[in-house]
Amino acid sequence: MTLTPRNRLLESYAQVKGHVHRTPIMTSSLLNAMTLSDIYFKCENFQKMGAFKMRGAINAILQLSDNNRKNGVVTHSSGNFAQAVSLAARNLGVPAYIVMPINSPQVKKDAVKSYGGIITESEPTLEAREAGAMKIIEDTGASFLHPSNNINVILGQGTAAIELFEDLPDLDYVFTPVGGGGLIAGTALAAHYFCNNCKTIGAEPANVDDAYRSLKSGKIETNEHTVTIADGLRTNLGDKNFPIIKELVQEIIRVEENEIIEAMRLIWERLKIVIEPSSAVPFAALLKEKNRFKNKKIGIILSGGNVDVSNLPFSQV
Amino acid sequence: MTLTPRNRLLESYAQVKGHVHRTPIMTSSLLNAMTLSDIYFKCENFQKMGAFKMRGAINAILQLSDNNRKNGVVTHSSGNFAQAVSLAARNLGVPAYIVMPINSPQVKKDAVKSYGGIITESEPTLEAREAGAMKIIEDTGASFLHPSNNINVILGQGTAAIELFEDLPDLDYVFTPVGGGGLIAGTALAAHYFCNNCKTIGAEPANVDDAYRSLKSGKIETNEHTVTIADGLRTNLGDKNFPIIKELVQEIIRVEENEIIEAMRLIWERLKIVIEPSSAVPFAALLKEKNRFKNKKIGIILSGGNVDVSNLPFSQV
Repeated sequence: MTLTPRNRLLESYAQVKGHVHRTPIMTSSLLNAMTLSDIYFKCENFQKMGAFKMRGAINAILQLSDNNRKNGVVTHSSGNFAQAVSLAARNLGVPAYIVMPINSPQVKKDAVKSYGGIITESEPTLEAREAGAMKIIEDTGASFLHPSNNINVILGQGTAAIELFEDLPDLDYVFTPVGGGGLIAGTALAAHYFCNNCKTIGAEPANVDDAYRSLKSGKIETNEHTVTIADGLRTNLGDKNFPIIKELVQEIIRVEENEIIEAMRLIWERLKIVIEPSSAVPFAALLKEKNRFKNKKIGIILSGGNVDVSNLPFSQV
Repeated sequence: MTLTPRNRLLESYAQVKGHVHRTPIMTSSLLNAMTLSDIYFKCENFQKMGAFKMRGAINAILQLSDNNRKNGVVTHSSGNFAQAVSLAARNLGVPAYIVMPINSPQVKKDAVKSYGGIITESEPTLEAREAGAMKIIEDTGASFLHPSNNINVILGQGTAAIELFEDLPDLDYVFTPVGGGGLIAGTALAAHYFCNNCKTIGAEPANVDDAYRSLKSGKIETNEHTVTIADGLRTNLGDKNFPIIKELVQEIIRVEENEIIEAMRLIWERLKIVIEPSSAVPFAALLKEKNRFKNKKIGIILSGGNVDVSNLPFSQV
């Protein structure tokens, strides 16, 4: 029997639930006044390992057969997904092999190690990383987990929005950042099946606006360069999530680097929480387009809080 | 009829309740593992205007007669209490006069103004500030509110701990920072009346260890200099709060500047919340003395989150 997407989402939610935090939803009367709307921040920065990626990683590993789990999982990532797979795998008793570029910051390698991930270093090209992952698959029989272009990862990421809609069934919009497309595709599915008329809006740095251009052209576009402070959003969409995004995402709003930093500062100073630059992008988009969203009820998924506090973008006043 | 301290605390709690946030309590398995204890962080950084001071300000204004309220309130402060009085007064429809040193940072003046406080500038000496406040009292009949040496302020500050004990009636210890003594005195009263055998521990920067020395000598000591990153803790105890502290506080632990910064970084990075340096002092104390508090249930009051994010103490790694 093939489950409908709605039932697959529900099944993922039921399975993921016991393995992740139900993160709080925060509000700020000042930020509401600034944007002329009612904003509900879903705080995935408080998620285990500090980002929503934990949800997708857990769900993808839970869907593996017992035999496959024994052989472990492998991914190539230098960001939150590497940590998420490491921790999710450890929590489920599964080996996690992480291929990381040799020039990854030590702090990221340490984080993966602290969650029990087994690191293999590769040259810092996509080809070398893929080759490194392939070798591990051949050697160990481990299952490859793509950070965003994997349907179980997408469904897992959608569980943050399901929680949001359980508490706030009458949201008009839900905003998410767009990187590889896993979070926004999962969120759009959740909005489609579990909320009345809630529209999904993506937000992307103008510097890496591949998803914006992909929606325009109807095919997956890439970025000529990946220079943005929102380092989680440099990647491109994939063939599993793009069809969902094309069908269910209403619009992608682009923001400039200074707008991202200003939005991040507002959230730090007003909500008193630590978020990473990528997480500030949807709020930056709302600030920029506030007149179009006046008096609406808006959910914003704050995707994560893993940031190096000794290297922040806030300049001296 | 004179109310007992217990009943005065209860009365303050009943009155303050509707005017402040019931702040969340956060935990971190990693920080528990580091300290070998169970820590419950009471997050007053999420309080209105970003600090516990809102509680004392509200309570002190609520205790004024209607006539006194009409004439307004006055305080001299450049810190959180100035903002707290401004916002509490505005919420209660009372004028707030704030005497601020002429060299206060513009960001602090702006914050007071944004909450509706009426600023009078003075020369940056205690004498000049007191003279400025006295002139306003003579001109307007406003009531003077001391930031920490006022019994209604003390009782108001104690309501944070009452909330903590409601949720966690079996805490072994509650840790607070010690500045002017209002928070720790209120907390010690709350622990004494509303918790079974919970002991109150103060934490203070070694650089400004006036309270530590006051407990030793039995009289109020002052600091020769006030150089510490924990800028909320530079002040001395007062004759209203010192007797309470002497009777009910078990111990004051002193910590070094680098220990404060390290504790602050851990809370930012692990709890993903923004706290000010003064708030990190009790956690620094627990980290330092962790062997003495092994396996205990410990409440820590995170006093506030008002920090200039463009001027942080975390050095580049």
